[in-house]
Amino acid sequence: MNLRIPGPTPCPPEVLSALGTQMVDHRGPEFAAVLERVSSGLKRAFRTENDVLVMTCAGTGGLETAVVNTLSPGERVLSVSIGEFGKRFAAIAETYGAAVTRLEFEHGQAAAATRVDEALANDPSLTTVLLTHNETSTGVTNPLRELAGVVRRHGKLLLVDAVSSMGSMPCEVDAWGLDVVVSGSQKGWMVPPGLAFVSFSPRAWQAYERSQMPRFYLDAGKARESAAKGQTPWTPAVSLFYGMDVALEMLEREGWESVFLRHQRCADVARQGVRSLGLELFADPRFASNTVTTVRAPQGVSVSDLRKALRERHGIVLAGGQGPMTGKVFRIGHLGLVSEAEVQAVIAALAVELPRLGFVAPVGVSRSPA
Amino acid sequence: MNLRIPGPTPCPPEVLSALGTQMVDHRGPEFAAVLERVSSGLKRAFRTENDVLVMTCAGTGGLETAVVNTLSPGERVLSVSIGEFGKRFAAIAETYGAAVTRLEFEHGQAAAATRVDEALANDPSLTTVLLTHNETSTGVTNPLRELAGVVRRHGKLLLVDAVSSMGSMPCEVDAWGLDVVVSGSQKGWMVPPGLAFVSFSPRAWQAYERSQMPRFYLDAGKARESAAKGQTPWTPAVSLFYGMDVALEMLEREGWESVFLRHQRCADVARQGVRSLGLELFADPRFASNTVTTVRAPQGVSVSDLRKALRERHGIVLAGGQGPMTGKVFRIGHLGLVSEAEVQAVIAALAVELPRLGFVAPVGVSRSPA
Repeated sequence: MNLRIPGPTPCPPEVLSALGTQMVDHRGPEFAAVLERVSSGLKRAFRTENDVLVMTCAGTGGLETAVVNTLSPGERVLSVSIGEFGKRFAAIAETYGAAVTRLEFEHGQAAAATRVDEALANDPSLTTVLLTHNETSTGVTNPLRELAGVVRRHGKLLLVDAVSSMGSMPCEVDAWGLDVVVSGSQKGWMVPPGLAFVSFSPRAWQAYERSQMPRFYLDAGKARESAAKGQTPWTPAVSLFYGMDVALEMLEREGWESVFLRHQRCADVARQGVRSLGLELFADPRFASNTVTTVRAPQGVSVSDLRKALRERHGIVLAGGQGPMTGKVFRIGHLGLVSEAEVQAVIAALAVELPRLGFVAPVGVSRSPA
Repeated sequence: MNLRIPGPTPCPPEVLSALGTQMVDHRGPEFAAVLERVSSGLKRAFRTENDVLVMTCAGTGGLETAVVNTLSPGERVLSVSIGEFGKRFAAIAETYGAAVTRLEFEHGQAAAATRVDEALANDPSLTTVLLTHNETSTGVTNPLRELAGVVRRHGKLLLVDAVSSMGSMPCEVDAWGLDVVVSGSQKGWMVPPGLAFVSFSPRAWQAYERSQMPRFYLDAGKARESAAKGQTPWTPAVSLFYGMDVALEMLEREGWESVFLRHQRCADVARQGVRSLGLELFADPRFASNTVTTVRAPQGVSVSDLRKALRERHGIVLAGGQGPMTGKVFRIGHLGLVSEAEVQAVIAALAVELPRLGFVAPVGVSRSPA
């Protein structure tokens, strides 16, 4: 099976094998050693001196961790959203009582720094900005460094959803001044889902002290306190820590720069291949993601028929659209354990199936993959 | 390593091997089939027709799921506590704004039905009771059926922490009228930590509709809605579902009655063995748990020295005390993947190490294991 969705990603055999390691006492020395290695590796990957906490939950639990540990009911928050995950971040903040101002950009577009600047200038009561680095639903990567610069100039707290970017493309927590940054094990890390990684800057810890939102299972302060003793406050997903331990070692052996370049090359293959078939990319090409490529539904072909044909006849699993994008796009995941050959196989399969399903490429477009 | 703590428990080779199964699309047919098998198996194990939701989190996240989906800030709740996990359940409810009345029993004792009855009779404004089935910190099993009967007679909602009992001893959700019941994968289920199981009765779903506590990641309604489509609302810990799928099949093959009897036999070996060494059981013998045996610190021997000796010289890992019980007790876990021989090995190792550490058994006690 060539699993080409934007997470869970396939896992290397070394990681799958590590998952089967027998249990240990999660309050004993063996687990403390694993936790220490995983946390240090994550700090290097996040490019930060900040604490990086490992929570047993999905990426959405990581986003909730960011919100409930820094904000208070009634607090005024700017949500900068470019798609479904941006909306989800805002919905979490609102669920816990934050007063959310929404700055939404058209699906397929990145957030414009000037508009974020304006929004913050117009409402000095805003304390915090919620931002998505890589929007998995649209395949757009925000210019995070530039956007973070704007937020920093206004002196606001910045919470970043880097679930599907961190570890696959540059994301410099300290250099860019990102206060809380969230990722998840099932994305670029090549590990099954179930762990979220959340970094907290000193400013974020100050916000934690003020924050009045209720939290217990996702309490970052309790996680920090336990981490100092080589533990987690609640029983951790031990097997997934074993997997992360091995995966981080593999990624560091490859080298982060090489990992980022590999993701860029795979994304290039996806984008060029899709265009060569006469299909249209959904994302603004200036901000097209290196971890997921979103493609407009081919004229006259149903996305679900196309996905079914790829699954059944080629063993290739693609993602459909999310929320309002259902039926309008399909998505090719190329993050984590991915090579150019695997992406080329997707393009080759599309080249076979699209004509079978009645798609006719516009004149002037070669039907063979690039 | 003979891991004899009350969770995580050792996992069978079949489960460890299943964990290494490659990822699939968590929105595709393969995962839907696994989710369906796991959910049905859990319903049979919980002895219920209620929904049993599978959440990606620790048992503590499961307790939070019970609280935040049924209660509202200011709502009056009776916490019946016999130890650390009872206190934790109450702390979660209080964190989210419930007005908690605490009915606490001495550590080592079970809750008395008459006192629960009195407490409910004295304060008709109480809507809900929080109850621990098996208190892992003291090694006491509450007479849940009797206690639930009292709660039912008063018409209150009953939330039950069955994290370390369900699947290891009888716990009849429907017959005993338990509204919300929580367990966790790393206990009797023989699977690594990371999944919580939470059943909701029709009464609990009515409470859900009224409940005003904030929730997002742990929203039971979202989980139910997704489950109807063979999915989870957020990315699930796929590997642990693979493990549960295999473990449930193994447990059903053994037969639940046999599983319960095996736990009882192992507990008998632990209790008789400990007494034969001249040690004192901490729990009231009438309510001593079949999943964990709590032993008072041997006269003149430090619990941490004893645990260290067992670990280093025998490869046996025991648990210490939790919270105020630290240093006062040690605990032998015998749940999940456990046989009488493994518990006998603990007794044999204690028989060797206790005299080495200077413990002298009271006169009249044989020093050899029973």
